[in-house]
Amino acid sequence: MTFINKITRPTAVVDLEIARNNLERMQEKARKHQKGFRPHFKTHQSAAVGKLFANAGIEKITISSVLMAEYFASAGWKDITIAFPVNVREAEAIDTLAGKVKLSLLVESEEVVEILAKQLQHPVDVFIKGDAGYRRTGIDVEEISEIEKLVGSIERKPQFSFAGCLIHNGQTYHAQSEKEILEMHDRSLEKLAKLAAWKKSHYPDAIISLGDTPALSLADHFENVDELRPGNFIFYDVMQHLLGSCRVEDIAISVACPVVAKHPERRELVVYGGGVHLSKEGVDYQGKTIYGFAGTFTDKGCKISDQKSYVKKLSQEHGIIHASDELISQVAVGDLLAILPVHSCLIPPLLGPYLTTKGDWLEVMRNYSF
Amino acid sequence: MTFINKITRPTAVVDLEIARNNLERMQEKARKHQKGFRPHFKTHQSAAVGKLFANAGIEKITISSVLMAEYFASAGWKDITIAFPVNVREAEAIDTLAGKVKLSLLVESEEVVEILAKQLQHPVDVFIKGDAGYRRTGIDVEEISEIEKLVGSIERKPQFSFAGCLIHNGQTYHAQSEKEILEMHDRSLEKLAKLAAWKKSHYPDAIISLGDTPALSLADHFENVDELRPGNFIFYDVMQHLLGSCRVEDIAISVACPVVAKHPERRELVVYGGGVHLSKEGVDYQGKTIYGFAGTFTDKGCKISDQKSYVKKLSQEHGIIHASDELISQVAVGDLLAILPVHSCLIPPLLGPYLTTKGDWLEVMRNYSF
Repeated sequence: MTFINKITRPTAVVDLEIARNNLERMQEKARKHQKGFRPHFKTHQSAAVGKLFANAGIEKITISSVLMAEYFASAGWKDITIAFPVNVREAEAIDTLAGKVKLSLLVESEEVVEILAKQLQHPVDVFIKGDAGYRRTGIDVEEISEIEKLVGSIERKPQFSFAGCLIHNGQTYHAQSEKEILEMHDRSLEKLAKLAAWKKSHYPDAIISLGDTPALSLADHFENVDELRPGNFIFYDVMQHLLGSCRVEDIAISVACPVVAKHPERRELVVYGGGVHLSKEGVDYQGKTIYGFAGTFTDKGCKISDQKSYVKKLSQEHGIIHASDELISQVAVGDLLAILPVHSCLIPPLLGPYLTTKGDWLEVMRNYSF
Repeated sequence: MTFINKITRPTAVVDLEIARNNLERMQEKARKHQKGFRPHFKTHQSAAVGKLFANAGIEKITISSVLMAEYFASAGWKDITIAFPVNVREAEAIDTLAGKVKLSLLVESEEVVEILAKQLQHPVDVFIKGDAGYRRTGIDVEEISEIEKLVGSIERKPQFSFAGCLIHNGQTYHAQSEKEILEMHDRSLEKLAKLAAWKKSHYPDAIISLGDTPALSLADHFENVDELRPGNFIFYDVMQHLLGSCRVEDIAISVACPVVAKHPERRELVVYGGGVHLSKEGVDYQGKTIYGFAGTFTDKGCKISDQKSYVKKLSQEHGIIHASDELISQVAVGDLLAILPVHSCLIPPLLGPYLTTKGDWLEVMRNYSF
C-alpha cells in the first residue's frame, strides 16, 4: 500500500525529503553569509512541516497573518514576525499573542502606530515596512528622514521597540530572466546602503530583513542586509522554476488529481481538480497561460518526465490537461495525475492536509476562524 | 451594533434579501416556461443558504462533487444530481450516498459505466454528459448513435437507469456581448433538436437539462430542454455583471477587507484581502485585468457608488485597490472596503462562513475532508 492508494479526491502531496534538502541549502546560504535566518511559514502553513525547521535548529519564523501567528504560537513557536502591515481591527488578538510570544509587527504609518499604542498592553517589536523597488506598500528605503520620523513615534511608545526595516522585493517575480532577478537584487541592495549606514550609527541592533525566494535562491551576496526571510523555497513551484529559482526536481509539492475523462482526439485529459483546488493563478509558459505541469506518480512520488503536458484551463472543479501522446497512452480513467502547482503558497488553504509520499497525513492550518 | 462591527478579518458578506430576489426571478422564469428547476448549489455551498431554496418549495438540487453531495445530504436534501463526470475513485462514497438519497450521476464513457457497475450496489439514475458547443468534455449532442450506444450500456446494468442528458454551455462565459450570449444559446438549442426528438420517441421520461447562468438569466426561450440548472444566479458576481447577466445591485455577495495602508499619491489603498481570500481569478475590465470592484459598507450592506475603484493586484494576503479620489478621501486605515468578487463560486472554500448583512453567521461546507 503506497500513498497513492489513500487518494480518492484532489490531494496535496508533499515530498519531505525534497523539502528538507531545500531547507538545508537555504540555511547553509544564510550561514555562509553570516545572515540571520527567519524563514517565512506562509508557504506550507503546517505545524507538521514546521517541525522540519525546528529539527534544523531554527527558532525564529515569519508569517503573514494574525491567524497564522496564532496557529504557529499554539504549535510552540516563540519568536514570530508578522510580515504584513498591521490590521488594527485585530488589535485585541495581537495583544493576546504578544502576551504569549516574542512578537514583531510591521507598520508603515504614524497613524497605525498611534491607534495600536492605545490598544496594545504587551511589549512588541516594531518593524517599518521598507520599499526597495516593489511599490506594493511601505516607505521608500532611501527616504531616511521619513523613516527616522516614524522610528521616533515608535520609540516614544513605552510598549514598542523599533526593530528594524523589512523589505520584500516582489518585483523579482516579474523578471524575465535570472540575470534580471540578480540585477533587481543588486539595485535593491544598493538602495539599502543609506539605510544600512544610518542604522549602523543610530540603531546598531536593529535589523534589515530581506525576503523574496527568487533573489535569495539565485544571489550570492547580501550586503546591507542582516536577515534572510524567504518562504516559498521550502516547496518551490512552477512559477519559481520558470523564473530560474529552482529545478523541477526541487519542487516538493504536487496535487494529485483523478482522471475523469479522456479526449485523445484533442490531446486532452479531464481531471477532478479545478480552480477550487489548484487556485486560478496562471503563469506564462511558451506564450500561453498555464496552471501547472502535469505528470504521473510512482510509488516514490511525483514524476514529470517532460514539460509537454500542462493544465491549460480550470473551471471550478474541472481541470483540462493538454497531454502529450505519451501521457495519454499511459493513463486511464480513475488514475491519478500529478500536477505541479503554479504557486504553492495558495494550495494549503484550498486542499487542507498534506499527504506525504511516505503515506502520512500532515495537518495544515485553516484559512479562517469564526 | 451592525454586522460591520463583527468583522476583524476578510469576511464574505451576504445580503439574503438580494439572494431571495434572484431566486424568485429565476424560479418564476422556470415556472413560466414550464421547465423543471434544479438549481446548482456549487455557488453558495451552504446549508443555511440552501434553506432559501427549501422555503421556496425546491426539492431537487445539483451539486458538483461527492463532498458537496455528502454535505447537502446531511442537511436533509433527498434528490441530488452530481453534475460532474464520475470520479471512480470515489465509488464507495457514491454507493453509500445512493443508499440514502435519490442520486443522479453523470457519465460520458462506457469505460466508466463498466467500472461503476462493478462497484455500486444501490440504484442510481445516470445522465450522459452532452456537449452542445463548449468542448470541455462530454459527447457531441448531435452524435445520436454514440449517445444511443452509451444509453444501451447504462440500461444493461440492473442498478442503473438512463435519466437523460446534461449540458453546460460554458462558452457563454467567453461571449463579448449579451447578443452573443443569446446567439450561443440559440445555436445550442438548435443543436439539441435531434436529441430532443430522439429522446421523445425512445425515452419520453428522460430529461435534457441545461445549466449556465448567463444564458438562463438573459434568454426567454428554452425549447428542446426540460430542466434548468443554473447556479451562480443566487449571488451573481462581477463577471456575470460584465457579461450582462445581472445589474451590480443584484450581486448578493461581497468580501469585507480591512484597509491597512493608504497611498493617495498613486491612488492606491492596500487591504488585508489577497489571493487566498478573493481567489486569483481575474476578469477583463476596460482593457485591464481586475479582481473585483471596490466600495464601502453602510449599516444596510454593500455600497458600490461607481465602478471607478477596483482590485488591481493580488498577492497572497494583500489586495491593491485602485481607488477613486472619492473613495480614498472616505476611508481611513482600519475601515472596511467592500469588494464585489469576480467569481462568487470560488469564495466559500476560501473564506468559510458567511456573515449576513443582518449580522448572522451562516455555515459553509469545507472543501476537503480527510
